[in-house]
Amino acid sequence: MDFYEAITTTRAIRRYHDEPVPDEALRDILFAATRAPSGSNRQGFRFIVLRKGETADAAKSLLAHAGRAVWDRKSVADGYNRGSGHIADSPKARMAATMRNYVENFQQVPVVILGCLQRHRETTDLLDGGSVYPACQNLLLAARALGYGGVMTGFHRAVHGELASLLGIPDNVTIAATLTIGRPIGHHGPVRRLPMSKTVFENSWDEAPDWAVDPEGSVFTTARW
Amino acid sequence: MDFYEAITTTRAIRRYHDEPVPDEALRDILFAATRAPSGSNRQGFRFIVLRKGETADAAKSLLAHAGRAVWDRKSVADGYNRGSGHIADSPKARMAATMRNYVENFQQVPVVILGCLQRHRETTDLLDGGSVYPACQNLLLAARALGYGGVMTGFHRAVHGELASLLGIPDNVTIAATLTIGRPIGHHGPVRRLPMSKTVFENSWDEAPDWAVDPEGSVFTTARW
Repeated sequence: MDFYEAITTTRAIRRYHDEPVPDEALRDILFAATRAPSGSNRQGFRFIVLRKGETADAAKSLLAHAGRAVWDRKSVADGYNRGSGHIADSPKARMAATMRNYVENFQQVPVVILGCLQRHRETTDLLDGGSVYPACQNLLLAARALGYGGVMTGFHRAVHGELASLLGIPDNVTIAATLTIGRPIGHHGPVRRLPMSKTVFENSWDEAPDWAVDPEGSVFTTARW
Repeated sequence: MDFYEAITTTRAIRRYHDEPVPDEALRDILFAATRAPSGSNRQGFRFIVLRKGETADAAKSLLAHAGRAVWDRKSVADGYNRGSGHIADSPKARMAATMRNYVENFQQVPVVILGCLQRHRETTDLLDGGSVYPACQNLLLAARALGYGGVMTGFHRAVHGELASLLGIPDNVTIAATLTIGRPIGHHGPVRRLPMSKTVFENSWDEAPDWAVDPEGSVFTTARW
């Protein structure tokens, strides 16, 4: 697949066919992930793949439980059950239905991958994300290029200790991402984002340069906040 | 360019030809960056491009100064002037020469891009990196696909306040990455990393699955730590 096609059509995919992801595809996806840069090239990124079996099922169950709690809180806090969330075909109602379906069926997701960071000091901060999220993005892009789709969530946060015990994750490792991967139901359309003039500046904050113009045919969305 | 060629040859590039990066290339690079995912699709990533002119020069000067201090400390702390760092053609000596050249010539880098995160709460943690570093990785990959090269650093950290004042960056925005981009001197070879068996596990920590085997012809490196 062409690079620009992959990068402009890698959307969050939360509905998957009930089809296993074969070893060869996982190898190619994880190989891409591990090509990512990291601070001082420490390569502290680690990936734990969870598909079938007792341990994978137990880990998925912990994450499914956490995911439902996250969405229960968020759907109330962000008013997904109010306003346009009540209009059956509004973007908000569609997102609410997708998220509800995602968390209710999390246990059946074909592949869960925990993106981890082996720390080089006691705590982590924002900048440490530069040593693990580029690899997670490579992973999602490669999945797309191979005809799969996925999404990154923070569902591990509420169950970090339980997951670490279950999977034998050492104390000097932090789980940074919960990624799910599978064969998408539906199709990969173009990614929708804010217009570039809202996010790309030159020389000063909020100074959109003349050249920061989205290609013809770009589709936009507002930012949820 | 083919997706896998881009992803397997995007190396850290720190030596650039003295050739400006045209608006069209920057547009394509930044468009790719802004296609990245972010937590709850908040799209809090922002990019400030610095090329020529008084403000850009002043910002580059702050970053150059910070970069030299970072490398001065690191070259001593990590022993780049000891052991194999003294052997003229060792990887360590080559890296030291490249880093020295990079920080000494930072002021002349064709393009500096500050990757910023508009925060949705007071502080940031590791997970917030998932809302800005995927976009930074898209940016570096797109630069590669267009024949440019770059690298991500944390040089902004020591001069965050000065940069914010100079560029009018608001209080609710954190600079997350200093990226440099230009036409590479030399060529993009394949990325070298640890073998996948060291970083990819299934079901349990440190359990490398049979399928986690690097493609034939892969080149390896140890992790600097």
